[in-house]
Amino acid sequence: MMGGANGKSGHRVWRNARLATMADGAAGLGAVEKGAVVARDGLIVYAGPEADMPTAAGQGAEIVDCQGRWITPGLIDCHTHLVYAGNRANEFEMRLAGATYEEVARAGGGIVSSVKSLRAASEDELVAETLPRLDALLAEGVTTVEVKSGYGLDADNEKKSLRAARRLTDERPVTVRTTCLAAHALPPEAKGDKDAFIDLVADTILPQVAAEKLADAVDGFCEGIAFSPEQMARVFDKAKALGLPVKLHADQLSNLHGAALAARYGALSADHLEYTDEEGAAAMAKAGTVATILPGAYYFIRETKKPPVDLFRRHGVKMAVATDSNPGTSPLTSLLLTMNMAATLFGMTVDECLAGVTREAARALGLLDKTGTLEAGKSADLAIWDIARPAELVYRMGFNPLHARIWRGQ
Amino acid sequence: MMGGANGKSGHRVWRNARLATMADGAAGLGAVEKGAVVARDGLIVYAGPEADMPTAAGQGAEIVDCQGRWITPGLIDCHTHLVYAGNRANEFEMRLAGATYEEVARAGGGIVSSVKSLRAASEDELVAETLPRLDALLAEGVTTVEVKSGYGLDADNEKKSLRAARRLTDERPVTVRTTCLAAHALPPEAKGDKDAFIDLVADTILPQVAAEKLADAVDGFCEGIAFSPEQMARVFDKAKALGLPVKLHADQLSNLHGAALAARYGALSADHLEYTDEEGAAAMAKAGTVATILPGAYYFIRETKKPPVDLFRRHGVKMAVATDSNPGTSPLTSLLLTMNMAATLFGMTVDECLAGVTREAARALGLLDKTGTLEAGKSADLAIWDIARPAELVYRMGFNPLHARIWRGQ
Ligand SMILES: [Zn+2]
Ligand SMILES: [Zn+2]
Repeated sequence: MMGGANGKSGHRVWRNARLATMADGAAGLGAVEKGAVVARDGLIVYAGPEADMPTAAGQGAEIVDCQGRWITPGLIDCHTHLVYAGNRANEFEMRLAGATYEEVARAGGGIVSSVKSLRAASEDELVAETLPRLDALLAEGVTTVEVKSGYGLDADNEKKSLRAARRLTDERPVTVRTTCLAAHALPPEAKGDKDAFIDLVADTILPQVAAEKLADAVDGFCEGIAFSPEQMARVFDKAKALGLPVKLHADQLSNLHGAALAARYGALSADHLEYTDEEGAAAMAKAGTVATILPGAYYFIRETKKPPVDLFRRHGVKMAVATDSNPGTSPLTSLLLTMNMAATLFGMTVDECLAGVTREAARALGLLDKTGTLEAGKSADLAIWDIARPAELVYRMGFNPLHARIWRGQ
Repeated sequence: MMGGANGKSGHRVWRNARLATMADGAAGLGAVEKGAVVARDGLIVYAGPEADMPTAAGQGAEIVDCQGRWITPGLIDCHTHLVYAGNRANEFEMRLAGATYEEVARAGGGIVSSVKSLRAASEDELVAETLPRLDALLAEGVTTVEVKSGYGLDADNEKKSLRAARRLTDERPVTVRTTCLAAHALPPEAKGDKDAFIDLVADTILPQVAAEKLADAVDGFCEGIAFSPEQMARVFDKAKALGLPVKLHADQLSNLHGAALAARYGALSADHLEYTDEEGAAAMAKAGTVATILPGAYYFIRETKKPPVDLFRRHGVKMAVATDSNPGTSPLTSLLLTMNMAATLFGMTVDECLAGVTREAARALGLLDKTGTLEAGKSADLAIWDIARPAELVYRMGFNPLHARIWRGQ
């Protein structure tokens, strides 16, 4: 995994570049005007001013002249539901034509339709259906992507989803982190009994997923239309017992104090957060829980309450930005567009947006020691851009200035 | 132009396809489930059910099996400012960081910066800078694009812009319609004298542009921050005298009754229209003036007043949808995303969005006899899509399911 293709050592220097190192603690983007990055065996061995590059670092390496292009860390989409079957364009069309939510539901719409489609699909079919969406992300420089289950809602189908997500790395040069989101919604066979379903999640699904090492984290949807804080606590207790870190879909449609709940469990991240209050923000800051901002869903479902970006700033909560790519509320497969939405809709700055899809996204996945910045010792995951200034990555809509994408030095 | 590459006749049949013919008067998308399109010498000679295809139409033709894919008319972006130099990512960044409009202006921002950059660029540089943006549109199946001048604001620079726009067709297989938008903004050298500048436009710029046949239409920006209805009328009178059809940036930020003005001059289209009232809509319907909906600018400048789509429906005003691609208020180069915005932000239906980027966009350019629908006699401009239903073209965000793009049969 760490060696290059064909057994070569993968020793390369990208020189004559401008770097947005995104190094933690550096001002702004941690920019270096005349910079170089050196990779060996898949890892960054140097990133900084070309003039300061140790002679030994580049000796014998393949040299790439970047002609003044910008290099950022490879982008990280830290919140997706990328593995699903079918899509829900028909519901979108019905609603635009005036159908009510009830009419859509009666026509078989809503999350139940995604559950039905996913259960009917084979693991191979799920991989095949997911690849075009993954390819759309990779085409914009994504090198790490998180993928949640949550349309299976029983042990076999949750595991099938997670196996399909893991298999994406056989098909494409990308790092995938999987998250078990069994506590996403109530399946039809639960007949409305949320507590019994949470028992199934905690007693059966999570232990099986953990035993087969299919998930890197556990997530849940804490909301009136999904599960209560008490039910989520039961899921988190089990996750902790199984040694899995947790995350939470929190405070998206109402304030159930999901952010505070996530913080209490030392969650890697709490996500959405439109209704999070100051107490929640303070708790997240104290726990080091990242706020994952998901403007795609906000835009697509025509939400009007914005996440409290100012509160997060004031309390020093780190902010990630992600697509929330999913068929029901965010059929979005562009992390560049997601940054534009975070800026345009929520007023996040260019620096915050770029940190949100690199360093802070890595933090939200517990991967900050391995990727997310251009620093020696991390994976050589790079995106090289045909732009004059990093702000262009946030400002444009529907334009992809990626020049090259490097994953683990290749 | 009408023959195929290498002198071949370009006789082809796309069969086993689903067609959204978009034919005027047909219900919905004018869909044909088992359809075929036949092109010869760049023109459609048949589009309809495969079973009804005249035997002679396909004889000797190259046969393309579309394997059930959907074919729509090639997309048409009927309102762009695609030819410009530089970009305004720096202003975007400053404003997100808290700068006021005054601070941005003092730093050399605003439209004046685009005028400065365009005047400094050579015609070759303009073509080169525009091509990546054009390529982004073409990659999504665009076969016709309108391009406005309006950053030159003197005769030489307006003509340079329009020549650069015309030259795009030497570089790419696409139809370009050019529009002279000299009455876009006041250049610095006018020192605030709008009437004197309008004299320059009417007496010098338009006659030169017309004499050199550089423009297919004349446009203006009727707004408090730009030109009054009386000033625009002076420009339109001259355009009419020169035999050029007109269009108008109307009622974007306030209601100066620009829609009614445009209708009075039989304009091809009035564009933006956020503040248009019922009288304006009725006048447009009567005149056959198309309403061009531009959600990208609405989104990007965080406008809150929506164009009166319901009024346009009620009065039978035809609606086009376009990117308004420009560096200041809509740095948008995806017509698919534009459709999503029109649906999500303005509640336009899937059928309205698709008509807006095909049939109605052609109408807004005065090209409905030549393109915009799949009908015999029109240019064989097609987009072939990897989708199960046309709604997917509107529903997804940042995903491009184009399988193939055909311009004039090739
Ligand atoms: Zn989610
Ligand atoms: Zn415009």
